[in-house]
Amino acid sequence: MVTVVKISGNVIDNPVFLQAFLRDFALLPGPKVLVHGGGKLATQLAERLDVPQTMVEGRRITDAETLKIAVMSYAGWINKNVVAGLQAQGCNAMGFCGADGNMLRAVKRPVASIDYGWVGDIVPENVHIQLISQLFELGITPVFSAITHDGAGQLLNTNADTIAAVTAIAISRVRPCRLLLCFEKKGVLRDVENPESLISVIRSEEWAALKASGVVHSGMLPKLDNAFAAIVQGVQSVSIMHAADLVAVANGGNAGTILMA
Amino acid sequence: MVTVVKISGNVIDNPVFLQAFLRDFALLPGPKVLVHGGGKLATQLAERLDVPQTMVEGRRITDAETLKIAVMSYAGWINKNVVAGLQAQGCNAMGFCGADGNMLRAVKRPVASIDYGWVGDIVPENVHIQLISQLFELGITPVFSAITHDGAGQLLNTNADTIAAVTAIAISRVRPCRLLLCFEKKGVLRDVENPESLISVIRSEEWAALKASGVVHSGMLPKLDNAFAAIVQGVQSVSIMHAADLVAVANGGNAGTILMA
Repeated sequence: MVTVVKISGNVIDNPVFLQAFLRDFALLPGPKVLVHGGGKLATQLAERLDVPQTMVEGRRITDAETLKIAVMSYAGWINKNVVAGLQAQGCNAMGFCGADGNMLRAVKRPVASIDYGWVGDIVPENVHIQLISQLFELGITPVFSAITHDGAGQLLNTNADTIAAVTAIAISRVRPCRLLLCFEKKGVLRDVENPESLISVIRSEEWAALKASGVVHSGMLPKLDNAFAAIVQGVQSVSIMHAADLVAVANGGNAGTILMA
Repeated sequence: MVTVVKISGNVIDNPVFLQAFLRDFALLPGPKVLVHGGGKLATQLAERLDVPQTMVEGRRITDAETLKIAVMSYAGWINKNVVAGLQAQGCNAMGFCGADGNMLRAVKRPVASIDYGWVGDIVPENVHIQLISQLFELGITPVFSAITHDGAGQLLNTNADTIAAVTAIAISRVRPCRLLLCFEKKGVLRDVENPESLISVIRSEEWAALKASGVVHSGMLPKLDNAFAAIVQGVQSVSIMHAADLVAVANGGNAGTILMA
């Protein structure tokens, strides 16, 4: 079983949480992939460099200067520190953006009503699964930052959740694969005010009813829709969990909310 | 024959030169490694971020903020753009710092009369030659930025010429290897004012006499001393050449000044 783990930005922002997370991640058995988001570094850097950030409908527009900041932050400082931290834990990590080995080839998002700038969209067919498998055979743990390329020399900013999902889908075509989405919440709660109300398992046939019942918090809806879409495309299970609970998975158990077919 | 190419910062700073260089590099036959310097990006970024740069005896001190800038610039923006550019030329490049796959493990420079800060020194024994060979077997061209790690989670700023030399020495222990040092001059000149006075070959037994004669320009001395040191340690030849002349080597010829045993 291959494990693809997505770690969100707010875990990366806290050095103590990050170290603990990397220690737990290093303990996960079997081949694994880490995909990391950006955290606050890019935003802080943009402020210090006086590069105005344009948001349209809640999404950041990636102009040329913003792309540079994203590449420096995600593929540079964060990626290399995560790799160095994993190496210190005995995990033979290698840090990548999608241009490396042409592993994540994307398409610049077409300009429709909104021009998102240097943003790339990626499908599972453009994940270089053969090379990722060869790296697994060498005992390498790939660590992907949320930067892809178009194959013609252009780097592109790409959503880290999407990279994690398409990578897991692509891997699941050759080997069983699970996806763990780690963030700062326990999982899917029946009552968002009560952390004890965790739903531990949601099967795909239950999802429509649960969604219709209004029990699932609106912010969680797209996450779960995407998770079930990944399951339909072959991913064995998707867990939505607190980063601090990864240790339970490393010890062979489950944590958070596990979604499955 | 494996070719290790070092490209200096002032070639990287010019996008037109860089594109031409990457096109020529992609044409080089056989397994190859690219090591790149930093260029002006880190200096410009330090200025824009108001991070003062301290020079002692002509060498930059790497404090924590300067390390961050170096990692973002070298291992981030430059490395990933070089890789994306090589991919566009059909060269299956992967960009690394030394933490990736533990390929370049360094030791923080001990504090003597000068504290250089987060600077690492590396020896050929700490180049992970087995993994580099395995990447060659996968058809991968490693592209190294001048950042290493200490194996305990700390990234370190490291001289790109040194990385190129120790990597070539390490490779030469398992396969024949040559080193090409590409910069903005034709090679070693008998008369620094006359570009036609290029010395095309220097054999190691000629080097002491040539050095004593005062013919070789002082700025070139450490470069040549280091080159002959690499040759003593097994590197087949070291060429000192203009980046624009790489195409001659790609076509099976020689360029610049070639140093050999």
